[in-house]
Amino acid sequence: MRIEKDQIEAHNELAAVKHKRKFAFMSEEIEGLEGIIEKLIKFQIAIPSWALGTGGTRFGRFSGGGEPGNLEEKIQDIGLLHALNRSSGAISLHIPWDIPTDYDAIKSLASSYDLKFDAMNSNTFQDQADQAYSYKFGSLQHVDKGVRQQAIDHNIEVIRQGVALGSSALTVWLADGSCFPGQLNFRGAFQNTLESLEEIYAALPDEWKIFVEYKAFEPNFYSTTVGDWGQSLLYATKLGPKAYTLVDLGHHLPNANIEQIVSLLLMEGKLGGFHFNDSKYGDDDLTAGSMKPYQLFLIFNELVEGMDAKGMDHATGLGWMIDASHNVKDPLEDLIQSVEAIMLAYTQALLIDRKALLAAQQENDVAKCQEILQDAFRTDARAIVQEARLRTGGAANPIQLFRELKIREKLIGSRGLKTVATGL
Amino acid sequence: MRIEKDQIEAHNELAAVKHKRKFAFMSEEIEGLEGIIEKLIKFQIAIPSWALGTGGTRFGRFSGGGEPGNLEEKIQDIGLLHALNRSSGAISLHIPWDIPTDYDAIKSLASSYDLKFDAMNSNTFQDQADQAYSYKFGSLQHVDKGVRQQAIDHNIEVIRQGVALGSSALTVWLADGSCFPGQLNFRGAFQNTLESLEEIYAALPDEWKIFVEYKAFEPNFYSTTVGDWGQSLLYATKLGPKAYTLVDLGHHLPNANIEQIVSLLLMEGKLGGFHFNDSKYGDDDLTAGSMKPYQLFLIFNELVEGMDAKGMDHATGLGWMIDASHNVKDPLEDLIQSVEAIMLAYTQALLIDRKALLAAQQENDVAKCQEILQDAFRTDARAIVQEARLRTGGAANPIQLFRELKIREKLIGSRGLKTVATGL
Amino acid sequence: MRIEKDQIEAHNELAAVKHKRKFAFMSEEIEGLEGIIEKLIKFQIAIPSWALGTGGTRFGRFSGGGEPGNLEEKIQDIGLLHALNRSSGAISLHIPWDIPTDYDAIKSLASSYDLKFDAMNSNTFQDQADQAYSYKFGSLQHVDKGVRQQAIDHNIEVIRQGVALGSSALTVWLADGSCFPGQLNFRGAFQNTLESLEEIYAALPDEWKIFVEYKAFEPNFYSTTVGDWGQSLLYATKLGPKAYTLVDLGHHLPNANIEQIVSLLLMEGKLGGFHFNDSKYGDDDLTAGSMKPYQLFLIFNELVEGMDAKGMDHATGLGWMIDASHNVKDPLEDLIQSVEAIMLAYTQALLIDRKALLAAQQENDVAKCQEILQDAFRTDARAIVQEARLRTGGAANPIQLFRELKIREKLIGSRGLKTVATGL
Amino acid sequence: MRIEKDQIEAHNELAAVKHKRKFAFMSEEIEGLEGIIEKLIKFQIAIPSWALGTGGTRFGRFSGGGEPGNLEEKIQDIGLLHALNRSSGAISLHIPWDIPTDYDAIKSLASSYDLKFDAMNSNTFQDQADQAYSYKFGSLQHVDKGVRQQAIDHNIEVIRQGVALGSSALTVWLADGSCFPGQLNFRGAFQNTLESLEEIYAALPDEWKIFVEYKAFEPNFYSTTVGDWGQSLLYATKLGPKAYTLVDLGHHLPNANIEQIVSLLLMEGKLGGFHFNDSKYGDDDLTAGSMKPYQLFLIFNELVEGMDAKGMDHATGLGWMIDASHNVKDPLEDLIQSVEAIMLAYTQALLIDRKALLAAQQENDVAKCQEILQDAFRTDARAIVQEARLRTGGAANPIQLFRELKIREKLIGSRGLKTVATGL
Repeated sequence: MRIEKDQIEAHNELAAVKHKRKFAFMSEEIEGLEGIIEKLIKFQIAIPSWALGTGGTRFGRFSGGGEPGNLEEKIQDIGLLHALNRSSGAISLHIPWDIPTDYDAIKSLASSYDLKFDAMNSNTFQDQADQAYSYKFGSLQHVDKGVRQQAIDHNIEVIRQGVALGSSALTVWLADGSCFPGQLNFRGAFQNTLESLEEIYAALPDEWKIFVEYKAFEPNFYSTTVGDWGQSLLYATKLGPKAYTLVDLGHHLPNANIEQIVSLLLMEGKLGGFHFNDSKYGDDDLTAGSMKPYQLFLIFNELVEGMDAKGMDHATGLGWMIDASHNVKDPLEDLIQSVEAIMLAYTQALLIDRKALLAAQQENDVAKCQEILQDAFRTDARAIVQEARLRTGGAANPIQLFRELKIREKLIGSRGLKTVATGL
Repeated sequence: MRIEKDQIEAHNELAAVKHKRKFAFMSEEIEGLEGIIEKLIKFQIAIPSWALGTGGTRFGRFSGGGEPGNLEEKIQDIGLLHALNRSSGAISLHIPWDIPTDYDAIKSLASSYDLKFDAMNSNTFQDQADQAYSYKFGSLQHVDKGVRQQAIDHNIEVIRQGVALGSSALTVWLADGSCFPGQLNFRGAFQNTLESLEEIYAALPDEWKIFVEYKAFEPNFYSTTVGDWGQSLLYATKLGPKAYTLVDLGHHLPNANIEQIVSLLLMEGKLGGFHFNDSKYGDDDLTAGSMKPYQLFLIFNELVEGMDAKGMDHATGLGWMIDASHNVKDPLEDLIQSVEAIMLAYTQALLIDRKALLAAQQENDVAKCQEILQDAFRTDARAIVQEARLRTGGAANPIQLFRELKIREKLIGSRGLKTVATGL
Repeated sequence: MRIEKDQIEAHNELAAVKHKRKFAFMSEEIEGLEGIIEKLIKFQIAIPSWALGTGGTRFGRFSGGGEPGNLEEKIQDIGLLHALNRSSGAISLHIPWDIPTDYDAIKSLASSYDLKFDAMNSNTFQDQADQAYSYKFGSLQHVDKGVRQQAIDHNIEVIRQGVALGSSALTVWLADGSCFPGQLNFRGAFQNTLESLEEIYAALPDEWKIFVEYKAFEPNFYSTTVGDWGQSLLYATKLGPKAYTLVDLGHHLPNANIEQIVSLLLMEGKLGGFHFNDSKYGDDDLTAGSMKPYQLFLIFNELVEGMDAKGMDHATGLGWMIDASHNVKDPLEDLIQSVEAIMLAYTQALLIDRKALLAAQQENDVAKCQEILQDAFRTDARAIVQEARLRTGGAANPIQLFRELKIREKLIGSRGLKTVATGL
Repeated sequence: MRIEKDQIEAHNELAAVKHKRKFAFMSEEIEGLEGIIEKLIKFQIAIPSWALGTGGTRFGRFSGGGEPGNLEEKIQDIGLLHALNRSSGAISLHIPWDIPTDYDAIKSLASSYDLKFDAMNSNTFQDQADQAYSYKFGSLQHVDKGVRQQAIDHNIEVIRQGVALGSSALTVWLADGSCFPGQLNFRGAFQNTLESLEEIYAALPDEWKIFVEYKAFEPNFYSTTVGDWGQSLLYATKLGPKAYTLVDLGHHLPNANIEQIVSLLLMEGKLGGFHFNDSKYGDDDLTAGSMKPYQLFLIFNELVEGMDAKGMDHATGLGWMIDASHNVKDPLEDLIQSVEAIMLAYTQALLIDRKALLAAQQENDVAKCQEILQDAFRTDARAIVQEARLRTGGAANPIQLFRELKIREKLIGSRGLKTVATGL
C-alpha cells in the first residue's frame, strides 16, 4: 500500500488558501524563514521498527488492528508515514525481531519509499528461544563469561547485518543492572560491561559509531549498569572515538535537567544521538512533546546552539530517532504527532535570536534571556513546518489525510484485526 | 511615582501598526475573539505584598535596589504594575509585615491605583519579637494550647484587619509539621490543627472565605500537617461551607498531576484559589510559566471547563494570586512576566474547542483529544492578550515600557540602592 | 507436596542451642516479650495467588521452574510457605486467573494447609478472550455504559465466588486513567467510577468490605482515576461504611510520607488493608523490607499506635497482604523474605516505648523521640520472631530449610522446568 | 568548659554491668570483633564549624540558646562532643565565618581537645560586606572575569589559612548555576568554572587535595554548574590527580542510587570525601541515619568493600564529615546522634560476610546476597560501638551524659539565651 501523489495533492489543494495566508503572515513577521525551511527539509527522524504496533505494559496490551506482521510491512508503514510528512525517511531495526531474509530485496523496498537504514539495535534484554544462556542476570555485565560472550557475539552479528543494509551505527541499550542491594558488585559489573563493549567496539567497521544508551531504572529496580550520562560518558571515553552517548528523554531520574546534559555531552564531543519521547513518571514512552513541550524546545535550543558552535550539520551530525510506545493511540497517528512536535521544537529553536541571547547572558539580564526564549516558543511555528512539508511533497495535514484516506481501515482489511507486530 | 497616561500612549503608538496587523490576522483565524477579550479584561491577578522585593534562600539573598520599604510603597509598586498590564488590580497583604497605621489612607491610596484588597495572609511560621510563645514546633498543631491560642488569636486579628480593608478571605498557610520520624503524633497534630481552625472559622464574617493551603514539604522535612490536597480537603470539609482548599503550584511531590487535583476540587465545590508560580524541584517559586508552560495551560483547561460546568464566574469565582520569589530578576519585571504567562495560558484555554474535545473524549479518540489541546496551545495568543491590555489602557509591551521609563532606576533614586522590602 | 513435621523438627533441633541462647538474652533485655510473641503468633499475612510464579516487566520475563500451573498448586505452594513460617495462613485469589471448579474441594484443600481465603481481587485491567467489550480505555470509568456494566458484573461475580470460598472482602484495583492530557474529563471519569462502585457496593453481602486501592501511575502514564489516598478516601466516604482505602506501598509519588497517610486513614476509620512490597522508583514490587526497612518500621509504628488507640485487633482489624513481583528470585524464597521483614518490623514497632514516646512528643523533645524509635529499630528482633515461629511449629530458619529440603528442585521435578504460573 | 574524666567514669560505671553483658553476648555471636573495634577507634568524623548553632530555612530560624559566638567557642563545643563520643576529633572551618586571629592559639586550643583541622571550606555563595563584586550570578562560573578572579583569590586565601592551621584539603561547594532557562550558556559556565578551578588547583600545596562538591539544585532552581557526580568527575579529571569528587548525601535527584555512585568514584580513584546527613525531599540536612538508615549502611558497604579492594585506609583514605542543619534539635545532641548512626552503619558494614557475599554474587543467588546484607544490618551493633567508645575514654551513652551534666544549660549560662552562631 502506498499513498499516491495525487491523493496528497488533492488534500493540499483544499488547505492551500488558508496555509498561504498564514505563511505569508509568518514571512512578514520573521526574517530568514527560507534558511529555516531548508534546514527543516533536510531534518529526518528515524522510526524504530518496534513502534509500528501497539505497545503495552506488564499489565496488558490492547492490540489495535492492521499491525505489520513482518519487516516488509514495517517498512511499508514507515513509507506511508514518510509520504505524509516527508520527515521520517529512515528506519531503525531491532535484531532479532527484524532479521531480513533477502537483504537486497529489503534495501530495494526501503529505497522505493525513500527510506534509509538508521542505527541498528541489539537485544540482550530478552531470552530468545534458541539461546544457550539466559540474560536473567544481565548480558554484557554478567559474572559468567559465557553469557557475556553470547551477548558480544549477538552485537557483532547485529553490526554484520547493519553493514549488509547500509547502516552505520549500533545502539546498545542494556537492561543490565540489579533489583536488590548486594546482588551486584558495581565495579565488577562495570568492568565486565566495559570489557564486553571493547570487544564489540573492536568489531566496528570504519565510519561506524556505537551509541551507549543510559537508563536510570526499569527493568532493573535497584541499579542500572549504564544508569546515567556520567556512566555512559565513562564507557564512551574509555572505548574510544567511535563511541558516543545516546540520550533517551525518558531515561532519567525525576526533575533531571536533560538540556544541560545534552549541552555538556556536546562540549565533550560525545553526544551521539537521541531517542525522542515524552514522559511524566518514568520511561513512559509517550508521544514526543505531549507532556513537556517546553522541555523539548529547550533541548533543541541546546542542540542548535551547541552543534552550530561545533560546526556540526544538524541533519547528519547526530542520530535522531523516536522511541515511543503506542498503548492507546493508533501507532501511525502517534508517530505523526511525535514527528510534528519535534519539527516544531526544532523550528522554534531556530527562531531564537542567538545574538540577543548571548548579549543578555553576558549582562546577566535574566528576564531578557527568558523573553528571548519565550518569544521563540510562543511563536506559532506550524505554518513554517507545513511549508517545508508541502515543498517536499508531503501533506498539509498528515494526520487528517491519514484519516481521510482510511489508511488504518485498509491496513486492517489487508492484515486483519487481531494482529501483533513482531517483537511486541 | 505613577506612570502617566501619555507615557503609555506614546509607547503604544509606536507599537500600533505591528499589533494591528497581528490582531487582524488573529481575528480572521479565530472566531469569537471578542468574548475572549471581554473575559481577559475582567481577569485580575492579585500580587502579594512580599513579592515586591528580592527574595532569597537559606544560603543568601542578593538584594536589588529600590525595594519598597513600607506598605505604601508596596501599593505604589503594584500600582505601577497594574498601570502597565491592567491585570494586577489587587494586593494580598501579609500580617504582621503589612499592618496599616491608617486604614482609610491605605484604602484610599490603593483605590487611587485601582487596586482591591485580596485575601489576607497570616504568619505563624516565624516568631515575632514580642511574641509570648514560639512556633518552633508548630502553631495551630502545637501540643501546647497556649501556643495554639496565640496562633488562633493572630489569625482572628488578621481577619479583623482584612475587614477594615475590605478584604473577604483569609489564607492560612501553615509550616506546621515535623522534621523527624516520631516527633509528632500525626492524628494528634491533625486534631489540634482542626480545632484551631474551627476557632478561626467561627470568627469569619459572613461572606468571608478561609483558604487552607497545603504543602508537601519545607520548612519541615519529614511531615507536613496540611501536606496535600487530601488533607486540605479533609479540613475544609470538616470546617464547613466557608472553607476551601488553596492550590500553590509549587507545593506538590515530584510528578504530581496538579490539573487533576484542580478538577476534583472543583467537583467537590472546595477549590478556593490559586498561588501561581513555577518550579522544577520543589517550592522553587519561579516566574509563572517559566518552566512548565504546558502544565499551566492544562490547569487553565481544567479551570475553564470546570468553572463553566459549575456556572462560576472566571474572574470572581476563585482567588487568583501570584506567590513567587524573585531571587535573580527585578521583582516587577518578574511579576510582569508571570502575569503575562498566566494571561496567555488562560487565553489558550479559552481557545480550546470544547465541543470537539467532549466529542473526542466520548469516542476515546485520544489522538484527536491531543490535537485539540495542542491546537489551542500552539496558537500564538500574545496579540489577543495585548489587545485586551490596550483596550483597558495598559501598555503594548509592559516590560519594555518599564525599562524605557527607567522605573527601577527612579525607584532606586528615591528609595536607595541598599534596600530590603519589609518582611524579607 | 507437603513439609513433614519431623523435617521441621530435625531442622529446628540443630538450631536450638543458638536460638535458646539468643532468646534468653533478649528475654533479659526486654520486658513483656510474651505479650509480643502472642501477637506475632496471631499475625497472618495473606499471599496473593499471582505471587507464586516469576514476574516480569514489559521488557521480558525470565521464568524459573516448578511454577504452579493451577489453583491447587498455588494453594500447595502457600501451604509450603505457611508450614515453614506459620505466618502466611491465607491466600488472596485473583479472578479470572483462579476460578475454582469445585469450591468444596478447594476449600478443603486450603483448610488442609491451615489456609483461609483472604480478600478477592477482580481484574478489569486486561481483556479476557471471551469478553464483549475492551478495557483499553478503562473499565469502571469508561464513557460507555456497556463497558462499565461488564466491569461491574465481573466484580459482582467475584464477590459471588468469594462468598462460596468464605472470603469477606473485595479488593478493587483499577488501572483506569489516561495516558495523555485531554484524553479524559477527570470529573466525568470520577463520577462514572463512583456510580460503578456504587453498584458493586450494593452487591456486597453483610459483613463484607470493599477495598478501593489507589495508585499514582502505571499502566496509565498521565492520570489515574483512583490516583492517591485523597481520591480513594473520597470514593470510600461516598460509598459508605463498608468501603475502605487499601494502601499498596509502591503506589505513591516519589518521597511520599506513607506512614502519615496510614495514620490519617486510621483516624478517619477508613484504612482497610495493605499490600506490602518495597520499591525505589515506582511500583517496583520488590521484596518487602529490601529497600527501605526503616519506612516499613515507621508504618508499623503508626499501625500499632493507631489501631491500639482505636481498639482494633492487630491481626483481624485490617487486611494484610503481600503484593510483589519476583523477577529475579525464587518466588517462595522471596515471599519468605517478605514475611520475615514484615514480622520484624511489626515486632520492632511493638517494642517501642509508647509512654516515653508520648511524653517526649508532649515536650517537643525531638532528639528523644528519635532515640526512642531508633532504640526499637536497632534492636535485633530476629530471635523474637523466631521464637514465635518455633512455638507454632514453624522452622527456625525457613529459607534455609526450604533449600535443605530441595523444595524448588522437587517442584521442578513434578511440574517441569518451563512453567508459567497462570495469570503471569 | 570541659567534661572531666571523672564525670565520664562515673556515668560509665553505672552503665557497666548492662554493657558488659551485652558485649559478652555479641563477642560470642560474632567472630573478629577486636579487629572491628580497632577500626572503629581510628575512625573520626569531622564536625563543620557551622553545625554548632541552630540552622534555619528561608522561612525562619528558631534559635536555641548557648550557641558559640566565635571560633574558640565552636572548638570548645566540638571538644565537648569529642570528649563524649571520641569519634569527632576534627573540625572543618568555613571562611570567612571562622577566620582565626591568632593561628597558634587556635591550634593549641584545638589540640587541647584532641582536635585536628579537617578540610577548609570556602564561601562564594554569599556576598560579604566589603566585597568588590557580587556573587548574585555565580562566582567561578561568572561571565565577568573580575568576579571569577575575586572568587579564585578567596579560595586561594582559604588554602593559605588552611596551611597555617595544618589542614590539607579544600572543599569547594559552588552555588553557581541558573534559575531560569536561557540564563546561562551551560558550556560557557562549565568552561569558566573549569578555568577558575585550574587557578585554584595551581595554588594547592603538595599533599593537598581539592574536593569538588556537586549538588543537583538549591539555591539555584534550574541548573547547577557542578550538578551531579558526572559533572564533578569531569572537573576532577580535567584538573588532575589532586582533585576529587565530594559526595553530600542530600545533593541528589529523587531516588538516586548513591551507593553505586560511591562505588564508581572509588573505581575511578576519584572519591575524595563525604558530607553525611539525611533527607527525604532535597538537601534537608537532617541527622545522619534518621530517615534512611539502610541507605547509609549500603553506602558503607560500598566504602568498606571498595576501599579494601584499593588498599585504602578506612580512617584516612577519605575525608569524613558531617554537614547537617539543626533546626529543631539541640545541635550537639543532633551531632551525637549523627555520629552514632554513622558508626553503627560502618560497624554493620564491617560485619558483612564478604567472602559469602562474593560467592553468592558469582552464583547470582540474589536471595542469599540479600540475606547476607540483612544479616549484618539486623545485627544490633550498639554494644560494639559502645565498647570502642569506652576503650578510648568516651561515654557509655553520650546523649544521656550530655543531659545529665546539663551541658546546654551551662552553655546558656555562660553564653546567653539569645545567641546566633557566627555564620548562621
